[in-house]
Amino acid sequence: MSTKAYAAQSATAALAPFSIDRREPGPTDIHIEILYCGVCHSDLHQARNEWHNTVYPCVPGHEIVGRVTKTGDKVSKFKIGDLAAVGCMVDSCRECDNCKAGLEQYCLSFPTFTYNGEDKISGGITFGGYSDAIVVDEAFSLRIPDGLDPAAAAPLLCAGITTYSPLRHWKVGPGKKVGIVGLGGLGHMGVKFAHAMGAHTVLFTTSPSKVEDGLKLGADEVVISKDANAMQKHAASFDFILDAVSADHDINAYLSLLKLDGNLTLVGAPENPLPVAAFNLLLPRRSFSGSAIGGIAETQEMLDFCAKQGIASEIEMIDIQQVNEAYDRLLKGDVKYRFVIDMASLKN
Amino acid sequence: MSTKAYAAQSATAALAPFSIDRREPGPTDIHIEILYCGVCHSDLHQARNEWHNTVYPCVPGHEIVGRVTKTGDKVSKFKIGDLAAVGCMVDSCRECDNCKAGLEQYCLSFPTFTYNGEDKISGGITFGGYSDAIVVDEAFSLRIPDGLDPAAAAPLLCAGITTYSPLRHWKVGPGKKVGIVGLGGLGHMGVKFAHAMGAHTVLFTTSPSKVEDGLKLGADEVVISKDANAMQKHAASFDFILDAVSADHDINAYLSLLKLDGNLTLVGAPENPLPVAAFNLLLPRRSFSGSAIGGIAETQEMLDFCAKQGIASEIEMIDIQQVNEAYDRLLKGDVKYRFVIDMASLKN
Repeated sequence: MSTKAYAAQSATAALAPFSIDRREPGPTDIHIEILYCGVCHSDLHQARNEWHNTVYPCVPGHEIVGRVTKTGDKVSKFKIGDLAAVGCMVDSCRECDNCKAGLEQYCLSFPTFTYNGEDKISGGITFGGYSDAIVVDEAFSLRIPDGLDPAAAAPLLCAGITTYSPLRHWKVGPGKKVGIVGLGGLGHMGVKFAHAMGAHTVLFTTSPSKVEDGLKLGADEVVISKDANAMQKHAASFDFILDAVSADHDINAYLSLLKLDGNLTLVGAPENPLPVAAFNLLLPRRSFSGSAIGGIAETQEMLDFCAKQGIASEIEMIDIQQVNEAYDRLLKGDVKYRFVIDMASLKN
Repeated sequence: MSTKAYAAQSATAALAPFSIDRREPGPTDIHIEILYCGVCHSDLHQARNEWHNTVYPCVPGHEIVGRVTKTGDKVSKFKIGDLAAVGCMVDSCRECDNCKAGLEQYCLSFPTFTYNGEDKISGGITFGGYSDAIVVDEAFSLRIPDGLDPAAAAPLLCAGITTYSPLRHWKVGPGKKVGIVGLGGLGHMGVKFAHAMGAHTVLFTTSPSKVEDGLKLGADEVVISKDANAMQKHAASFDFILDAVSADHDINAYLSLLKLDGNLTLVGAPENPLPVAAFNLLLPRRSFSGSAIGGIAETQEMLDFCAKQGIASEIEMIDIQQVNEAYDRLLKGDVKYRFVIDMASLKN
């Protein structure tokens, strides 16, 4: 099926209208008319070939919410007219130990990412959510629970699950002191989740202008990370720190804030290796980890948690025609806190 | 009590005979006539002020085994004539959460280290095991179980517990694939312990000449870490890796060998920060930790485990007069695998 989309034709080209082909839904597939698609920093990295692996034309977008318009005859989770969502993955091997454990993002044969992935069903490369519609196996789609605003829910599919998963894995909850580093698309979800999970939540930011927002979003304290005295007051006191900064930064300043057996998990992916001072891990015993998105079942759990807690992303809605300008603003950190494309604009 | 010792008088002076004063045993103290003292690389670091905090004169030595010659009237664990041991600590606050949890090495007020520590009982600085005798609270002393050779047991007090503790903490045992990086004083104990705990044990070494020893000490496989193909074969397959290398080295080469939720723990302390590539922690989720020695109760557990399993350190016995030469050989890695000083030589 011919489908309208927005694509980058090269690393230096602006995104522009393009037509792609979507497969006819198979027995377990659903066809989703896309209503909203969030703009993730990864979209920009991929469109501009900053990871040196982009296949062009490239249609980004992996924070997808829409309405089911067709269902394969074996589909059981959805009926036509339901809201459905797609995140960063559209398939995986489903057979390896990690897939069986519900950790499809760590599939030993590599999951099929929603865009720029090797499409094992139709061949070629997958195309993402900057488009009218997507066809996906229901096993890799999510239900949008009642009460969740579909536009504000879109960023939950990447920014949401990427922060929710490590907070759960490291057992954040009441009685725990939790730090969130950076108040951007990921960080603002980290603050909301840590607060909703009942932890004492401390936001670290370089920007004094973000203090008020941090407190409003649920932080119990906000620390300006450039203030050495303010940092020192929190030495060796955190159970867990979620680091959502993608730029180069001093990880040792945060490792030293962990108490015995505390963990710092990185969800951003700075381009350059991060120098780690051994003593910061030894005295006392601490750990430094990473985490990538989350599995399908956990993503559903996160959406259900959001509906129950009344949580969603803070968004600025744009038309698809503004996406190139939005990328430029993203690079300046000029968004509170996630752009979401109103896909109705693609019909214009 | 005046006690014979060997001390460094400055960062550049060779160790030489010196007389120190030991306190009279208090009610809970024991006086130990030292029979054997292991030579740890930390001794050399401290004697030569490589950590920039040495107070001179400096008497190193924290792998101490000897015989109890006096006991305070409230001592319950020892009687005169018993074998006793002292490791890296002689005191701690005993009141903080970490001390109460049996993790005195992570005492929130800092433990009193066996040498170059602030002596909170007698004032001044603590003096270590390169001496005739030591006085220590029985709470910070260990029993040497029957069947353990006292000389070969000495290195267990630091090299032993430093490797045993993280292997236990990360639940190494049957069905687990465990790597040990480096075959030196620490690494050779790591190989013995991982094997005795029932793990599939893989030694990583840069030296083809150590393959035979590695297998003899209990490794199931030995990988030459310079061989990229040999390394690649083990990609993403380890549950746990114990890194016992104190020199600068590429930690990413080992992080990439961990499977999902695998952990690499560093027990050496390289001088320079270690560059960590974020993607090695993210895909899949892995963790990088440190660990320092072990608590008193766990040290006793380790000694008892060694006696039961017939494990001790591989040692080369020296006289105290050879200690400076031993330091030079240590720097060249010319020891299989730990020097132990026969303290009877100090009487000469």
